[in-house]
Amino acid sequence: MNPGDALRRLRERKPLVHQITNYVVMNETANATLALGALPVMAHAREEVEEMVALAGALVLNIGTLSPPWVEAMIAAGKAAGAAGTPVVLDPVGAGATRYRTDTAKRILAEVDVTVLRGNQGEVATLVGVAAEVRGVESIGGADEPADLARLAARSLGLVASVTGVVDHVSDGERVFAVANGHELLASVTGTGCMSSAITGCFLAAKPDAPLAAAAEALAAFGVAGEDAARDAKGPGSFHVGLYDALAALDPATLDGRARIT
Amino acid sequence: MNPGDALRRLRERKPLVHQITNYVVMNETANATLALGALPVMAHAREEVEEMVALAGALVLNIGTLSPPWVEAMIAAGKAAGAAGTPVVLDPVGAGATRYRTDTAKRILAEVDVTVLRGNQGEVATLVGVAAEVRGVESIGGADEPADLARLAARSLGLVASVTGVVDHVSDGERVFAVANGHELLASVTGTGCMSSAITGCFLAAKPDAPLAAAAEALAAFGVAGEDAARDAKGPGSFHVGLYDALAALDPATLDGRARIT
Amino acid sequence: MNPGDALRRLRERKPLVHQITNYVVMNETANATLALGALPVMAHAREEVEEMVALAGALVLNIGTLSPPWVEAMIAAGKAAGAAGTPVVLDPVGAGATRYRTDTAKRILAEVDVTVLRGNQGEVATLVGVAAEVRGVESIGGADEPADLARLAARSLGLVASVTGVVDHVSDGERVFAVANGHELLASVTGTGCMSSAITGCFLAAKPDAPLAAAAEALAAFGVAGEDAARDAKGPGSFHVGLYDALAALDPATLDGRARIT
Repeated sequence: MNPGDALRRLRERKPLVHQITNYVVMNETANATLALGALPVMAHAREEVEEMVALAGALVLNIGTLSPPWVEAMIAAGKAAGAAGTPVVLDPVGAGATRYRTDTAKRILAEVDVTVLRGNQGEVATLVGVAAEVRGVESIGGADEPADLARLAARSLGLVASVTGVVDHVSDGERVFAVANGHELLASVTGTGCMSSAITGCFLAAKPDAPLAAAAEALAAFGVAGEDAARDAKGPGSFHVGLYDALAALDPATLDGRARIT
Repeated sequence: MNPGDALRRLRERKPLVHQITNYVVMNETANATLALGALPVMAHAREEVEEMVALAGALVLNIGTLSPPWVEAMIAAGKAAGAAGTPVVLDPVGAGATRYRTDTAKRILAEVDVTVLRGNQGEVATLVGVAAEVRGVESIGGADEPADLARLAARSLGLVASVTGVVDHVSDGERVFAVANGHELLASVTGTGCMSSAITGCFLAAKPDAPLAAAAEALAAFGVAGEDAARDAKGPGSFHVGLYDALAALDPATLDGRARIT
Repeated sequence: MNPGDALRRLRERKPLVHQITNYVVMNETANATLALGALPVMAHAREEVEEMVALAGALVLNIGTLSPPWVEAMIAAGKAAGAAGTPVVLDPVGAGATRYRTDTAKRILAEVDVTVLRGNQGEVATLVGVAAEVRGVESIGGADEPADLARLAARSLGLVASVTGVVDHVSDGERVFAVANGHELLASVTGTGCMSSAITGCFLAAKPDAPLAAAAEALAAFGVAGEDAARDAKGPGSFHVGLYDALAALDPATLDGRARIT
């Protein structure tokens, strides 16, 4: 794992990362992408998504505030990305909370060649049909299960599964990496999960041929930035501001040493 | 009035507060909700709002950037909330500025069982049909009128009216509470009115059986956070950041003593 | 050029600036407008844009996240502004990137009486049909070309062209002003171009009869705020926060001396 090397490459190439995401976090994920060193573009009109994604190094789909026209645009952009070999990240925000979200996430997984599925345990479990068991397991505090869930999701869905939590687990169905970077203040700001998906898109654009490594390195880099931002934070507001400063200040030379990927 | 107690309960229960709000403030009200200690969820698709509101402890409707599909979703969510006994806050942003906003606010009031109407004097006056008089009164600086307006709105609309200004007035049609917390910097950041509506939703979710107290306590808590955020602010940008820090740092033990509710 | 005087007038009049803009920057441009001293309003529903723009001192159209209903609203609001003599700013975000954006920007220019076109070199060049040449010229680092582009765009489109870059160029087709204020950190935050368009709208509302001066003064004022914000910034996050503080703190008395307009 060389997140420093990936970050260096990302900042040299400055890939365009096309994001069709939710209204709540759009400004945040654009600013996180830019702070890290890539170029965000938001475009959701059916009239232009295929042309836009053709310019991009990665596509990020996020169903956080979905509605029918946005879903159609996500599918169209996702198919165009697939045809061009452009990596796609899916963030299934709220899958399991409503049928519409669950069904939409499943539909995107069925119709689009998703490279990385980045979600929390509940969302990913819902999409592999083990929601009930996993929730039960969570309630008794099992430690190994997120790793198993990531491996199972990767195998059954044929992608890289990136399951975030206190410790994140990323798997291609064979190997499972645990990423132990981050800070509890990340949970106090809305959209940090969505930011981690956007940053996963940035790393995929930098190393599209190694999605497992890219997904794990993205979470490590974001987690290290969270650790840096927490140092001077007085609460969620100043932490949030510090997060962009920290993403921009991430040092490729020291990132490898600070990443806790096992 | 025990805003400290309500805040303590809110942080223990972490209620989900479903918000169908405007594009401008969506990130702000989500972060304010989270900083205070509740869980925000934004969902506006007709396909899912009824299912989502069934999971929520309160529903906040805000017409700041309305359009027909959003209005339909607000009505549907509001009716589902009413059927389930879930409290509803309406923020009639811009009522009086255009006919579409005035008509939409009136339609929501007619079709949805609104628990608390949270607006400024002009908006609330428009909705009770006394806009002209009130504007005239404001221009000569009368002090009692906002209290009268709150009582009148509460009586004629059959809800708790929460009329914010330099001093806020909250009434159930019988009693009127004046809340004198806050800071002038709140007017320098867009969406602080919308945040106060979101926080009203949080307090309603914490004590759904006492909407008058919840509405007044929410404004006191938000005002105290504004006072704290103003202390180190250099202008609207740093004040805005400090507001989230202050909401998260609000101390239930001292809040009762700092609340200026009479 | 008297940006200080324009700013003083703006803060006295507090004009309403109606913005139909993209989801990414809506909160940012509203807060920048408010920090500067004007009043933002966002409204995009076909049902109300004509009524809303009638209340406004300027209209800002921004195609950053466009879709058909928004385009129709922009055209309708733009026509109403034209009929009322209200100045209109167009920010053609991404013109040249997709056909839909290029066509929409051209359509607005054809159907609406645009007062100021505020874009970067690539966007403006696309709209005057010299994209290829200009990009080629940029690649060999020519210094005079942005000035020529601004003059050409102003002449061929019949408006004030405001072409931003490291140095900005503003022209009415005859004169060309270069504005050399600003800071490189502005490029590290998403939406600063959109903010400069919003602030152009604010200055136009303050002096509608002098659009060339208003456009140049707006960029000088925004650039000076950027210089101030950069002083204590640790990165893009703290710079972004400081930008609102700096806009609010802009001193009309010293602004004329600090503006670098030639």
